[in-house]
Formats: sequence, structure tokens, C-alpha cells
Amino acid sequence: MSGAYELRPIGRVESPLTDPADAPRQGDEGAPPSWLVFSPTVAAGLGDLRPGAEVLVLTWLDRARRDVLTVHPRGDRSRPEAGVFSTRSPHRPNPIGLHRVRVLAVDGLRLRVADLEAVDGTPVLDVKPVLGPPDER
Amino acid sequence: MSGAYELRPIGRVESPLTDPADAPRQGDEGAPPSWLVFSPTVAAGLGDLRPGAEVLVLTWLDRARRDVLTVHPRGDRSRPEAGVFSTRSPHRPNPIGLHRVRVLAVDGLRLRVADLEAVDGTPVLDVKPVLGPPDER
Repeated sequence: MSGAYELRPIGRVESPLTDPADAPRQGDEGAPPSWLVFSPTVAAGLGDLRPGAEVLVLTWLDRARRDVLTVHPRGDRSRPEAGVFSTRSPHRPNPIGLHRVRVLAVDGLRLRVADLEAVDGTPVLDVKPVLGPPDER
Repeated sequence: MSGAYELRPIGRVESPLTDPADAPRQGDEGAPPSWLVFSPTVAAGLGDLRPGAEVLVLTWLDRARRDVLTVHPRGDRSRPEAGVFSTRSPHRPNPIGLHRVRVLAVDGLRLRVADLEAVDGTPVLDVKPVLGPPDER
């Protein structure tokens, strides 16, 4: 498993959520609308994102721990610990966040999105379309 | 967008697919069964993965280009170029692969999976459960 790879953020989250302890565990559990603010260097890649699109946003959960391999599911200490790869815990060897969100508005290098549970300042790594019928991939 | 982050692979794909040109574009388009072979350092994180589970595998597409911002969708040059964040092209600033697969068998540090379109040797970054009802997260 030698070798490491370098992630370079393409943008950041701007959100009223500032404390990870206040963030909902999933975006459909009450996350407020937030902005994705992209670097001018990736502007050409954003050109076909439209309001109404359902997209997957990949983030780097930079406040997460990377030395965690077992967790109490949903932070509930009354439940037995589970292997982290069977959970959505942010704490994991490569803390990549995966968020399904809806695009509300597009404003140049900024996307307004619903249902994003990431906290303010979280680095954005990638945006991918949700897979639809084969022609839409 | 200053700062970069270091990904450390947790495993590798072992697959009969060796040429990216031969790999299907999506796993449900004819990918053969393959193995995920994990590092002993993450063994404790694998403990609750079971045959039949539907999981998301995140990979690092180490043969992809990172300087691509627009592509012909599905490689079809008769179609107009689209911003890469509206496509599933492997070529993108942070080439993270996202694959929904089914676990066929568990053998220590190895998982046999169906529907994985990644080529042999692809680094594995993370495994996450597909989100089910809230109690299952």
C-alpha cells in the first residue's frame, strides 16, 4: 500500500454551520442552505451545472480524526462499536465526505445548495452528477 | 484554496481488468467480479462487512489526468464538450472514483465484490455503507 496522493481542494463550503457538533449527521436531517465557492482555476468545469440538478459533492473533512477504525454507530455509546467502513462516521483513515445535494442557484463561481451538512470552511474536492439513465451519465 | 491533503491508500483492487480502455464506464455495464485487498493496518475497520452488503467504494484513479476541465460526455466526440463536474469522467482535478458494489464474499483482508469497473492495481481510499433507513446508517 505504498505511495500517497495529493488532494488539491477546488473550493470551500460557506455555511452557517460552524461547529461539527451542531451539524446534522446527514444532509436531509435539517442542514441549512449553504454555498460552494470554487476556485477560478476550475471555472470551466462548472459550466453545465444548473439549478435543480442533484449532485454528489465530495469534501475533505479536515476536522476529522484519521486514526479511528471502530466507532459507536451514530455516536450512540449504548450501541456496540462497529468497523468504521460499515458506518458513515467522519472519523476514518481518509475522511472524504460524500454529500448528495440539490443545486438551488448558480452565481459564477458560487453554487447555492440544499441539504449539505458540512461545516463552514470545509474543503471541496469534487462534484459529480447523480447517475440517471445511461444517456444522462 | 491553499493547502493540500494527503491521501493514504487503504488497499488495492485486484481485477481481470487491466486496460482502462477496456473497463466499462459504470460497474453495472459488465464489470467482472474483482477483489479488494486491504492493508493489515485497517483490519479492525472491516469487521462488520458481510456478504450481500451494498457498499460505496472510493478509489484513486491513478491513471487519470488531472488537468481536464471539459470532456465529451461518455467519450463520444460527436457530443459537445461539457464541464467535467457535470460528468463522471475519470479525468478531473481530484480523480476520486465512486463505485457502488455488492459484497460477494469476505476472506480476512480481502473482499470479493461485483460490479466494480476499476482496473487492476487501483488504490482504494474508503468504503462506506449505502445509506438505508435512518436506523441502518
